[in-house]
Amino acid sequence: MKSYLVNDKWNIIQKGFHADKMRDSESIFSLANGRFGQRGFFEENYSSDSLPGSYVAGVNFLDRTRVGWWKNGYPNFFSRVPNAPNWSGLYVRLIDEELNLAIWDIKDFSRRLDMKQGISYRDFTATSPKGNILNIHVEHFNSIANQNLTLLKYSVTSVNYEGKISIVPYINGDVKHESANFNDKMWDILQSEATNSFAYLWVQTKRRDTQVCCALTYQLLKNGKEVNASPIRIEKEKLTGFSTGADVKPGDSITLIKYTSVVSSLYYDSLTLVDNAKNNCELALKTGWDTLFGEHREQWEKIWQEEDVIIEGDPEAQQGIRFNIFQLNQNYRGDDARLNIGPKGLTGEKYGGNTQWNTELCCVPFFLLSKPQNIARNFLLYRYNQLPKAIENARKIGLNHGAALYPMVTFNGEECHNEWEITFEEIHRNNIIVYALMQYVEFSGDDSFIAKFGLEMMIAIARFWEQRVSYSHHKNQYVILGVTGPNEYENNVNNNWYTNYSCVETLKSIIKAVQDVKTNYADDYFRICSSCHFDEKEIEKWREIANNIYLPKDDELGIFVQQDGYLDKELKSVHEIPADQRPVNQHWSWDLILRSCFIKQSDVLLGIYLYYQNFSESEISKNFNFYEPKTLHESSLSPYIHSILAARIGDLDKAYDLFLHATRLDLDNYNNELSEGLHLTSMPGSWLALVQGFAGMQIKGDQLSFNPTIPTKWKKYSFNINFRGNTLHLEIKKSQLSIKLIRGEKVNISVYESVYSVIKGKEVIINR
Amino acid sequence: MKSYLVNDKWNIIQKGFHADKMRDSESIFSLANGRFGQRGFFEENYSSDSLPGSYVAGVNFLDRTRVGWWKNGYPNFFSRVPNAPNWSGLYVRLIDEELNLAIWDIKDFSRRLDMKQGISYRDFTATSPKGNILNIHVEHFNSIANQNLTLLKYSVTSVNYEGKISIVPYINGDVKHESANFNDKMWDILQSEATNSFAYLWVQTKRRDTQVCCALTYQLLKNGKEVNASPIRIEKEKLTGFSTGADVKPGDSITLIKYTSVVSSLYYDSLTLVDNAKNNCELALKTGWDTLFGEHREQWEKIWQEEDVIIEGDPEAQQGIRFNIFQLNQNYRGDDARLNIGPKGLTGEKYGGNTQWNTELCCVPFFLLSKPQNIARNFLLYRYNQLPKAIENARKIGLNHGAALYPMVTFNGEECHNEWEITFEEIHRNNIIVYALMQYVEFSGDDSFIAKFGLEMMIAIARFWEQRVSYSHHKNQYVILGVTGPNEYENNVNNNWYTNYSCVETLKSIIKAVQDVKTNYADDYFRICSSCHFDEKEIEKWREIANNIYLPKDDELGIFVQQDGYLDKELKSVHEIPADQRPVNQHWSWDLILRSCFIKQSDVLLGIYLYYQNFSESEISKNFNFYEPKTLHESSLSPYIHSILAARIGDLDKAYDLFLHATRLDLDNYNNELSEGLHLTSMPGSWLALVQGFAGMQIKGDQLSFNPTIPTKWKKYSFNINFRGNTLHLEIKKSQLSIKLIRGEKVNISVYESVYSVIKGKEVIINR
Repeated sequence: MKSYLVNDKWNIIQKGFHADKMRDSESIFSLANGRFGQRGFFEENYSSDSLPGSYVAGVNFLDRTRVGWWKNGYPNFFSRVPNAPNWSGLYVRLIDEELNLAIWDIKDFSRRLDMKQGISYRDFTATSPKGNILNIHVEHFNSIANQNLTLLKYSVTSVNYEGKISIVPYINGDVKHESANFNDKMWDILQSEATNSFAYLWVQTKRRDTQVCCALTYQLLKNGKEVNASPIRIEKEKLTGFSTGADVKPGDSITLIKYTSVVSSLYYDSLTLVDNAKNNCELALKTGWDTLFGEHREQWEKIWQEEDVIIEGDPEAQQGIRFNIFQLNQNYRGDDARLNIGPKGLTGEKYGGNTQWNTELCCVPFFLLSKPQNIARNFLLYRYNQLPKAIENARKIGLNHGAALYPMVTFNGEECHNEWEITFEEIHRNNIIVYALMQYVEFSGDDSFIAKFGLEMMIAIARFWEQRVSYSHHKNQYVILGVTGPNEYENNVNNNWYTNYSCVETLKSIIKAVQDVKTNYADDYFRICSSCHFDEKEIEKWREIANNIYLPKDDELGIFVQQDGYLDKELKSVHEIPADQRPVNQHWSWDLILRSCFIKQSDVLLGIYLYYQNFSESEISKNFNFYEPKTLHESSLSPYIHSILAARIGDLDKAYDLFLHATRLDLDNYNNELSEGLHLTSMPGSWLALVQGFAGMQIKGDQLSFNPTIPTKWKKYSFNINFRGNTLHLEIKKSQLSIKLIRGEKVNISVYESVYSVIKGKEVIINR
Repeated sequence: MKSYLVNDKWNIIQKGFHADKMRDSESIFSLANGRFGQRGFFEENYSSDSLPGSYVAGVNFLDRTRVGWWKNGYPNFFSRVPNAPNWSGLYVRLIDEELNLAIWDIKDFSRRLDMKQGISYRDFTATSPKGNILNIHVEHFNSIANQNLTLLKYSVTSVNYEGKISIVPYINGDVKHESANFNDKMWDILQSEATNSFAYLWVQTKRRDTQVCCALTYQLLKNGKEVNASPIRIEKEKLTGFSTGADVKPGDSITLIKYTSVVSSLYYDSLTLVDNAKNNCELALKTGWDTLFGEHREQWEKIWQEEDVIIEGDPEAQQGIRFNIFQLNQNYRGDDARLNIGPKGLTGEKYGGNTQWNTELCCVPFFLLSKPQNIARNFLLYRYNQLPKAIENARKIGLNHGAALYPMVTFNGEECHNEWEITFEEIHRNNIIVYALMQYVEFSGDDSFIAKFGLEMMIAIARFWEQRVSYSHHKNQYVILGVTGPNEYENNVNNNWYTNYSCVETLKSIIKAVQDVKTNYADDYFRICSSCHFDEKEIEKWREIANNIYLPKDDELGIFVQQDGYLDKELKSVHEIPADQRPVNQHWSWDLILRSCFIKQSDVLLGIYLYYQNFSESEISKNFNFYEPKTLHESSLSPYIHSILAARIGDLDKAYDLFLHATRLDLDNYNNELSEGLHLTSMPGSWLALVQGFAGMQIKGDQLSFNPTIPTKWKKYSFNINFRGNTLHLEIKKSQLSIKLIRGEKVNISVYESVYSVIKGKEVIINR
């Protein structure tokens, strides 16, 4: 799979126009700052296929549920982060022509996303139908230093045109949300105005009272010198802005800097929203581009200082992993427990921008290991705050006594998803929350979190399983019937091994947590007993279930069996599928997908990855060798896990292939769905594959341990990792690895089964 | 379950207004004539909850598919018989008031459906807000003698009102289809006009070019004498009609007879449609109510002569079975192979009026046994004509070589349904088509039908199974993975016993049919070999599959197992479900339904019923006693089958309860969904339960055989049955049964294992 993008260590570069890849490029060149983001659509007019999406974090719209055939328990609404007013736009007009990149002749088009500084550039030469030629240069960034601001610098140089060039910066509330269920409009326009110095548009989501206000002001320069032309104010019902400009001769250039602030009622009172938007953009104008960009760049510098991963000898991997780290930092800042990361972050409409279990599976470990612990803690608090809704979700499907079912897809904790086989059956999702809690305690050392917050969630989840398992008199064991595992290419199966196994591990963790809290945090324990109506006797039943659950396996093959009946299938390898039928979810009818042996994403292998302490290398090998050839990796959450296991069993080539797949999933558009947005919540997978796979990071006993290997192609790689308040820097070369402590005093770690003390200021060098 | 309706042998009677049961009554009092039908909604204004539906057979609208999450293979459209222009309506106006049954005070309300004559009556006294009192009498029938006509006689008698009474008969094209997917309008209005003598509305379905034209004319009488008042013509865009009337004093009555013709482009060229509609209603006016009603009544007389079932000693059962026979005859005339019966016939919107496998399972045997054989033949030709589409359906889900998958829900043969677990997986539906073919040959003796039409369908179905089964190396047998059986409360299961067993029987029938046609219809055989690219060698594989398919069973329990893993469930009885949770499909979330042991409709028992020759009474007993307590009967296709099997194993009380359930399903609203329309396609179940259950009718070898019993409550019962050109009349009493031939010369039958020759003109009396 080869990308149309140019390879570069710090930049994503597109050369040439590629109209057929417009939506792909829009996804790749997305800009965000954690508060809002927009796809990399053209700021000017472009009257051809495009997905111009702008999204404000934490703002959502309740779309009426659309199903073919209603089933009891379906939610009434599907939550969506609605396509917000377009705050990026401007028009460029000559006397009697308007720049339109779909109609004008475009030459020497290039764009570049500078990941080091968090800014995108675009350059091209455009020739109008009448022969007027303009050179265009665009710079755009969403400030992570001042998270209310997005700045655009737009320069037009006349090659042969003489006359007035007007530039019309605007905010447009007349936007479409492509994937709306019934084409409902999502916004009410509350107010729109243009004054002499600023213009704003104030909107509110229908059916919710969340509000957004965008305000713009600008600066106009001709040949580098500020021009004070009186603009024409534009005040339409849904569009506001200015028309300004200057007369030019060939060789002249005019530049407009658009200062736009985007604020929401998440952070400001409704009554002050307009004032805040206005003041922000006016202050930005006073501060000026250079200072604002400097502050923004400085923040990125800090991020890269802490989080950069260097891979020498493999520019593709280097570019890919930086792209992932860049996008994760753009899309989630970790400073607000009300926010989470949707599968596409702020880069597309798909999945409505809602939270899925991807967060706990893939994002929590990354943020936990690579950032200060309060970031991961905010993810967990997000779920804690939604516990009452999770209890309601379980009640809706007939469970009681405070049992909780965390949602598959949600904005505020209410289940939004409406496919019975997922909504009601993909219940393993509860377990990853307990897993994430345990991981947090393990890596942060902060076990008070369980006492303060975690245990209530855990008790509710244990109660869920208590009611959801059933006893088979036929097997004389507990069974879990009618589930969908992580492998969504099987639905409504019995005894999905992953679901059953993770249920056991979850119950064991919960039983231990109950006992730990009782012992170490007695006050919290009594508070919880009372608030949850919890009686310690409940854990007897949980233990009985954990000890006596059916786990399908095949002794002859030496494998855990994905689910009851799996071995009745025709067992084939994915290599037998003709290339023109991949990805199968875009070609096969659903029944064919279901009855085939092919796996969308790791399922048994996911269980082995998560609960690695429990499995021998030989068990990993047998299961990996059985399941990997049957795995399609049509979920973005699959390749990195397989890569980690391949590394663990010493299959470095396979591990590398899967690492590259995970790392360049979007840049190389593996799943043929880049147009819809980036796979934000699986982007951490590349980092995890490097750290847990190649570097072999595990927790053994109570100790951080490494078992580093290095792919053939690489000269060296390095990364930072946090562990209980310490930050370690590891650099791994072919023959040597070095470890130093860049935060903290001392930590014992194990490398290749030997224990080392890493002490502040003293590098540990280990020969391989 | 007690009905609000009055029990009567020949009438369905409602006393009292029952606004809360408006939709139920509308379903019950539906009128139809095979060409069109309308629910029993009030002809006058009624501004409260109601489902005013009018439907024209064979006219459909392609509604855009609505799903939550698209899957490959889903159809683009769902076909619906659209709610047609309301041709029944009229307004009744006083000087400054309009009759509205939701607002006026209504007393002494009654209505009656006279099933013997096929006419409905309605009477009430209405007092206006201003105190004007009117007595109303209404008569309405849809002619089965002249199938283009519906006649309404509307009489108003003034009690205390003096002044003008206007009556406004109209046709209104501004109708709503409640269950439309996206609220799309379904009709284009082509033309609408009112002349001096008639008014018409000509419409066409959007996205299809099927057209309907309704034309009306009328006759006005005052105190029984015709009045020639000049009407006011009403010509709105979507509504056409007349306003007419006369001055009255207390005691006077005026009567309007509305002659309406409803014609469609199925029977008339578009260019002549309006003329035909117009001519038909004008001719009707000339002919007059009395003659037209006489002709209609005469047709009903003939129907009852042939098809009446008499049950003495059980007025409820008597009323119920006549209601079913009446509605079946109203909704399907059997004279047009392009038509079929939707699950609700012409009495409601649900299921879009489309054809389902109910037709072959339940309707074909009834029509085959109770009517001339060309009726059942038309049902089979319907499927034959749709074979190319069935092949296309199979191709869409990846099968080839002329394999056919008959649709779950269809209008023209294209699959319309869009739930993967049904659309792609409820594939047993193919088998009932072969079953119906074999039944047809068995009862009609017409084996040429297989050679002319049936074999092509059969080959296509065998090819489907050849490609759809898979070989389990684990079991060393063929398996059928990922199916939904008739019991739709289980989805995506492996080795559903019914599906596997009926696959075996289907393949065996097909193999035999190939050989019979080759032997007896060599010309047809060669024609088919060529047109289907059929090679006799194909049957080797079919035989191998039929002989080596896995059929789950449990020797200990002595039962066939519904599907793999069924015995892992918690096995409970439906009596353990609290009454307020029934029907469970209206209360439980889908996962709970799926993982419970409860069965929507007979599944293993269906197989035992259909292929009864293969099972011993002990096998039937064991399976019945195991599955019946787990069966919810939430499908209308379930109770009659269980009733038949209960009768067969001598459990007469159970058989009777289930018979009554099947027979009065709608009258007593067992499934709490009467408001949506009648369960047309399961109505034959009551007849079948009587004939195949109580009378024990079977084919043994080549002979019609009976093993009659009689429920305790009954004095006697009698029915006619057709067998190979003969019609037998059976009358069964407690101690005696009599059989006579009312058509044909001689037929040998077996009763209680003894053989009797029944000869024309000679009654056979057998003591029980």
